[in-house]
Amino acid sequence: VSLVYWNGRLVERSEVRIEPDDAGFCHGDGLFETLRVEAGRPFDLPAHLDRLFTGAERIGLLLSESRRDLEQAVLYVAAGAPGPVARLRITLSRGTPGGSPTRLIVALPYDAPPEESYRRGVPLVVENEIRLISGGPLAGIKSLSYQLHRQALARAEAAGAFEALLLNEHGRLVEGSRTNLFVVREGAVFTPPEVDGCLPGTVRRRLVEAGIAGEKPLEPGDLVEAEEILITNSLIRVLPVSSVDERPVPRGPLAERLRTLAAGF
Amino acid sequence: VSLVYWNGRLVERSEVRIEPDDAGFCHGDGLFETLRVEAGRPFDLPAHLDRLFTGAERIGLLLSESRRDLEQAVLYVAAGAPGPVARLRITLSRGTPGGSPTRLIVALPYDAPPEESYRRGVPLVVENEIRLISGGPLAGIKSLSYQLHRQALARAEAAGAFEALLLNEHGRLVEGSRTNLFVVREGAVFTPPEVDGCLPGTVRRRLVEAGIAGEKPLEPGDLVEAEEILITNSLIRVLPVSSVDERPVPRGPLAERLRTLAAGF
Repeated sequence: VSLVYWNGRLVERSEVRIEPDDAGFCHGDGLFETLRVEAGRPFDLPAHLDRLFTGAERIGLLLSESRRDLEQAVLYVAAGAPGPVARLRITLSRGTPGGSPTRLIVALPYDAPPEESYRRGVPLVVENEIRLISGGPLAGIKSLSYQLHRQALARAEAAGAFEALLLNEHGRLVEGSRTNLFVVREGAVFTPPEVDGCLPGTVRRRLVEAGIAGEKPLEPGDLVEAEEILITNSLIRVLPVSSVDERPVPRGPLAERLRTLAAGF
Repeated sequence: VSLVYWNGRLVERSEVRIEPDDAGFCHGDGLFETLRVEAGRPFDLPAHLDRLFTGAERIGLLLSESRRDLEQAVLYVAAGAPGPVARLRITLSRGTPGGSPTRLIVALPYDAPPEESYRRGVPLVVENEIRLISGGPLAGIKSLSYQLHRQALARAEAAGAFEALLLNEHGRLVEGSRTNLFVVREGAVFTPPEVDGCLPGTVRRRLVEAGIAGEKPLEPGDLVEAEEILITNSLIRVLPVSSVDERPVPRGPLAERLRTLAAGF
């Protein structure tokens, strides 16, 4: 049976109880991470733990677990995850008033996009009504206060798209609602810089650190001239984009190449 | 014994269980309202229900309760609230995947600011690192994704202040982290307009509708020249401000007058 990690213990999921005054539920006050698990093994765990601990320090969450403790807990929960591919979520919240932070690690079934999406690409829309703000103390951390992103995704899906691209206060492209964005221009791969407000995803980090993609401010006009557009996150890895706002986007060789690469992270 | 309303039933608080995959906990996807209760009576309930139902419609939450049902539930929970003054919170979240929205109404003890704060005023700071965005589909609704506001408040409190004033992407004043802002200039009372991104509080609404305060874009410079500065919300009602960023603010007659008025709402 698959167990979950909850505040220092491994328990059955039905035992978990989030208090109604948990700051995660009341104020979206916390952080999360989503990992891909294959055959019981989590991918790129160190990068996820880096971001989680950076975020916890930034918002002043004091955990009783060391990094090693949390790593062990993730490995344990992942080992019991449903197969062949699962989604593992780490949630940290500020917990109840006067109490300790809530720590929760759960493995869940993962509904992957069909293989056809990887061959044909997926349609995107640019979200014009929602603007993200690029700076501030929550920039770059994966906050539980995610309603704006969820709203963007719901609006995109209602329009028949797979994902919404979001702009910041300067009108520059930031990210998708749950993905990072990569645009190919003249053979080079670019992704919006962190200063423009994106969540630095783990796949994105790998591609930037490997020198495969460069950070560069991007505007909606850059999408029109793109030779290829990709979106990434730790679950889908690398998906090609077939259209933006119903305007077809060329397909190129990079999507498949980077997807294969990401499978080795 | 004080009961809470939870998904259509009145239960003891210890029975309430928020699921770990509730969208309120996972993504801050929901809404809330905070009401003042005195001797079992909630204040300005219609205004709170207006905002709540407006927000629910905006984010596509379908409630099984009518407005009348929810009103009855609030009245019931308020009647058992701890006295003499309590804080009643209504929380709606999108609930678990495929399930119904979570509806929760809880009455809690309220720690009012000491009377001295009403006499002497409270110190504020202008938060310069956090910017709010003024538009978008969540503008004006009281989202559970409240981490940025909580972070602003925590930073203000760490600096010894009672409240943080927040700016939008244009550098204009929007609101406090949990209050609306009123500035007196040449004898007239002004508050930032909704288009600048503020949460339209219930006390603010009353003061604007009564013609006591006018909406006007405000900038930090307006604070320097203010003859009196006030902050409002449904719990504190009307509090005078003693300083902004440690610069003293004059005291005037309006705070006490409006506080008395708000007690009748």
